[in-house]
Amino acid sequence: MRPPFTTHMPLALREARAAAARGEVPVGAVVVSPRGEVLAATGNETRARPDPTAHAEMLALRAACARLGAERLTGCALWVTLEPCAMCAAAIAHARIARLYYGASDPKSGGIETGPRVLDHPNAHHRPEIVAGLDADACAGLLRDFFETKRR
Amino acid sequence: MRPPFTTHMPLALREARAAAARGEVPVGAVVVSPRGEVLAATGNETRARPDPTAHAEMLALRAACARLGAERLTGCALWVTLEPCAMCAAAIAHARIARLYYGASDPKSGGIETGPRVLDHPNAHHRPEIVAGLDADACAGLLRDFFETKRR
Repeated sequence: MRPPFTTHMPLALREARAAAARGEVPVGAVVVSPRGEVLAATGNETRARPDPTAHAEMLALRAACARLGAERLTGCALWVTLEPCAMCAAAIAHARIARLYYGASDPKSGGIETGPRVLDHPNAHHRPEIVAGLDADACAGLLRDFFETKRR
Repeated sequence: MRPPFTTHMPLALREARAAAARGEVPVGAVVVSPRGEVLAATGNETRARPDPTAHAEMLALRAACARLGAERLTGCALWVTLEPCAMCAAAIAHARIARLYYGASDPKSGGIETGPRVLDHPNAHHRPEIVAGLDADACAGLLRDFFETKRR
């Protein structure tokens, strides 16, 4: 029997807010084990490192793999405030994430429901269950506020 | 005037062979600066780390960014023995690689000329010049030998 559903989006949102406070694009991600344990909670770090691959999702997947000492996160869930890009979408498949929960859609840079739709191709070799639109207003609002402040 | 064309595929192949010797899928990658300086030369490390995102291309992009202290590798070239997957293709776009040279095509897992064709979508925001099929027999041969040995 599956444990009762717990949302980890508030933690992902907290990571996104912390990223914004560091001057990073506010996206946050959380990896949760099959038992419901948080294995990693991360925010964007592309500027700080600097590393164009340091999206919140990539950092969360890498940190969770390091913690488990495994190349695959079988049965784990990934929570992320924004629709993952093509890079992160393929990484999610490589890591064999079982369930992907995300907040806001990203028609400009997304890779799941728009653009290359990476997980819809057989080349992905794995497709998680996907639930989109969770706390979408809060997730999108953080990004909107961030970019509005930038433009001032 | 552009400097005379120098192939960096032999170095990428050397990295791929070193990866095979470590028990990793034999793929190698090299990032070269606009002046022709090798900024990074890497092979797959997904098993050793363990990290499903540690493809040769990702490690090369990250190492080159770390070396330059920059989020973008403007004007740089990436040489890789195998057609990049969707993850690496999008990372190449994020890093603003100017020219992508690769060896063997990868109809099963590629993300450039097959499957999601990540760089053909406007969501990639950047498309490098692409030259495919360089030393393709040598690049594909390494992979074939590796997987044949595995099956024995």
